[in-house]
Amino acid sequence: MVKVQVYVTLKEGVLDPQGSAIQNALHTMEYKEVQSVQTGKFIELKIEKTTDLEKRIEEMCEKLLSNPVIEDYTYTIEEVVS
Amino acid sequence: MVKVQVYVTLKEGVLDPQGSAIQNALHTMEYKEVQSVQTGKFIELKIEKTTDLEKRIEEMCEKLLSNPVIEDYTYTIEEVVS
Repeated sequence: MVKVQVYVTLKEGVLDPQGSAIQNALHTMEYKEVQSVQTGKFIELKIEKTTDLEKRIEEMCEKLLSNPVIEDYTYTIEEVVS
Repeated sequence: MVKVQVYVTLKEGVLDPQGSAIQNALHTMEYKEVQSVQTGKFIELKIEKTTDLEKRIEEMCEKLLSNPVIEDYTYTIEEVVS
């Protein structure tokens, strides 16, 4: 069994209204030191190991977990002692 | 300047309908090896360093970036060469 952590973020240049809203709210709360905010998705999967593990993870990311048109993804794989 | 990456996840025992929906979809797409899916938020902030940096980051997390009733958060801090 492995634990896969997928991080999905917006591509460079794609507007992030949620990030801007968070930044404005933080500034209103007097956290003026915040210069930029970018939001994204974090997905953690527990997966039974298969021979073509990385290939299938990338397929899952491209087909379902991220939108390749506007999002980038990265992932980490960690052995899990089950 | 520092880059702070905040990961917000649901507390143990809190239902994650989005995670279940993703898992069902992956199974439908023949990725039966997926045993569990947990979703969360990923927020990246660029912050001017202040003396009480960690304290203020934790305040931001607890007041705005996460809902302490149902969510946990962790964060990493990385120096950024500006």
